[in-house]
Amino acid sequence: MFTIDDGQITSPGGFTAGTAAAGIKYPGKCDLGLLASAVPAVAAGVFTRNAIRSAPVQVSERRVARRNAGAVVVNSGCANACTGERGLRDAESMAAMAAARLGLNDDDVLVASTGVIGTFIPLDRVEAGLGRIALHEANGHSFARAIMTTDTRPKEIAVAVDTPHGRVVIGAAAKGSGMIHPNMGTMLCFVTTDACVDPVFLQAALARSVDKTLNMVSVDGDTSPSDTVFVLANGVAGNELIDEKTGHSFEEALAFVCEHMAKAIAADGEGASKLIEVVVAGARSIADARMAARTVASSPLVKAAIHGADPNWGRIVCAVGRSEAAIDPRRVSLSLNGVPVMSRGMPLPFSETDLRESMKSTTVEVLVELHLGSAAATAWGCDLSAEYVSINASYTT
Amino acid sequence: MFTIDDGQITSPGGFTAGTAAAGIKYPGKCDLGLLASAVPAVAAGVFTRNAIRSAPVQVSERRVARRNAGAVVVNSGCANACTGERGLRDAESMAAMAAARLGLNDDDVLVASTGVIGTFIPLDRVEAGLGRIALHEANGHSFARAIMTTDTRPKEIAVAVDTPHGRVVIGAAAKGSGMIHPNMGTMLCFVTTDACVDPVFLQAALARSVDKTLNMVSVDGDTSPSDTVFVLANGVAGNELIDEKTGHSFEEALAFVCEHMAKAIAADGEGASKLIEVVVAGARSIADARMAARTVASSPLVKAAIHGADPNWGRIVCAVGRSEAAIDPRRVSLSLNGVPVMSRGMPLPFSETDLRESMKSTTVEVLVELHLGSAAATAWGCDLSAEYVSINASYTT
Repeated sequence: MFTIDDGQITSPGGFTAGTAAAGIKYPGKCDLGLLASAVPAVAAGVFTRNAIRSAPVQVSERRVARRNAGAVVVNSGCANACTGERGLRDAESMAAMAAARLGLNDDDVLVASTGVIGTFIPLDRVEAGLGRIALHEANGHSFARAIMTTDTRPKEIAVAVDTPHGRVVIGAAAKGSGMIHPNMGTMLCFVTTDACVDPVFLQAALARSVDKTLNMVSVDGDTSPSDTVFVLANGVAGNELIDEKTGHSFEEALAFVCEHMAKAIAADGEGASKLIEVVVAGARSIADARMAARTVASSPLVKAAIHGADPNWGRIVCAVGRSEAAIDPRRVSLSLNGVPVMSRGMPLPFSETDLRESMKSTTVEVLVELHLGSAAATAWGCDLSAEYVSINASYTT
Repeated sequence: MFTIDDGQITSPGGFTAGTAAAGIKYPGKCDLGLLASAVPAVAAGVFTRNAIRSAPVQVSERRVARRNAGAVVVNSGCANACTGERGLRDAESMAAMAAARLGLNDDDVLVASTGVIGTFIPLDRVEAGLGRIALHEANGHSFARAIMTTDTRPKEIAVAVDTPHGRVVIGAAAKGSGMIHPNMGTMLCFVTTDACVDPVFLQAALARSVDKTLNMVSVDGDTSPSDTVFVLANGVAGNELIDEKTGHSFEEALAFVCEHMAKAIAADGEGASKLIEVVVAGARSIADARMAARTVASSPLVKAAIHGADPNWGRIVCAVGRSEAAIDPRRVSLSLNGVPVMSRGMPLPFSETDLRESMKSTTVEVLVELHLGSAAATAWGCDLSAEYVSINASYTT
């Protein structure tokens, strides 16, 4: 597997994209994206676990269950969430407009939205915007920018993978949550591949990959009703079918792409200046390791301490302690950026000056060893800055 | 029941207190407190649920299980947590020093500590400080100040209750978390009463009261290894024994005292300018109502929005949605400071200008109606300010 230079969501064969400034919330902002496959594609998806689910999530989940799709239409500026039956009809209409534009059946278009909750989507502007979109295989970069809300940079990647059945390409574009505007905080990640993939395997591989990557990102512990990951696999590479038996290298590449996006989203969290990588090892179970790692990565006190390059390790231990993971306090060890600060429950001497200096790096690594078993997990977060608060305390309509 | 003017922890008969500046962390800071009952008292306690438990928590929990005690010794500046076997011995020594000072058995002294994690307590200073303490029934206010770390104001109350068996008094002092210094964030609450109370009922009444009051406070979701609530009931009032059958008015007063402290701690959270009161009603179960209320009260996005007096209700609904409480999105209704903003899943029109103005109040009330059952719960939190971040990003040794 290797990363393709300047890779984009349209790097895999047979995919095109296009964008428009539809004026959904702000005039002039590129806020509408269309991604299309030249041929019918196998589809998989995972969606928010929030009990409040946006209309596009509800519509797309039903369609992904059919395991195929030909296009994705996405907008920013309006989440189409908490909008009842009318919201569901609107999401279906938006997909139908894209389907008409592309000559597809309505059901073959997936839809995603991110933006303000509790407002209705201006369908006339979506329709006019779709009419202005020109699809092209060089437009992947533009698509990655169209789905940004207040992300400070686009998030995209493409990799080439040599599978037992030949080389295939996987591309992706994602957005995270940089919430200068209220309720813009949604994780969207779209993945394309020209591989020919068994649909059941594709869904399983996606779910496994997301569980250990995008589901391990925390910016502030608040989950959106719109979080969505799609994969479209169109088979244009002409490889033999990849399935559960032969899919190892493909799944590895898919997980790599998802992990890349997870780190990019965490590092670009609202007001963030640092990526925090938390590894919990020696846990009794994977579930325990994940709970502990996520609790540390999302602790406001840990995030604030790391913002200040503060080797305040007691906060990390306490976050592990409240995570509900099985722990024995007398076995817990902890390192910060490779410096051991606690060993089996007891404080260790260390140079505070040196560790403070080391923690000024743009990535801070936390390693927690529970010494109870062999399960491990990694979570990604970002520091908590005063900018986070000022961003989220102001409401801009 | 009525609140006693200028009430303090020594308002109930037979209690005295004293304090000293022992120099545990800072010279001159009043950091050592002693609370004593003139006669043996019935004791009850509840402790942190964090799997990392400070040495004083471990020692005191064993002693409270004996259901009686005569005194409490408490220090700020050092939490005596993550200190292993030596920490346990130190906590026992600290209690033994207080016992010697008071002529009690070691086991009759409860101990609590709050402060930096991972450092050892300077026992010589504790001993010298105890030698300088003068006990007096007018020293309750001083005791409430001695347990403060970076709280901006002392938290104390006393109430008189007419029980079926006569009038008794309940007093209390508490500290919350205003963490100018790292790991100072501990909730300590000490309650005294001159009532004669059955010990089994006292423990049960305390646990029930704390569950719906102090356990419903969230400043930042981070729990301390030192959180402790004690009640000492010395029977000096001479009432007939209060037990489960006759204890209704006593328990109501105990819960009132705990609720008073819960609100005081939330309102004085780190960097806080507002108290947030979240009521979740119509839940399927109390557990659901509590989960939903606590999740809303501790959501960084909700807290930041309320800091900015921002009627950004989508964030509240999303926090309910991720709380794991049973909900039906089509039945959820929401009011902010009495203004309905969402009804049964659909947005309502409201004056944003008026609601913004109303939300500038020092208490913001959130009412979530789930329309699924009859269970309700209240949680208390505070807004998230840039000051919270600057407080917690700086490490001061």
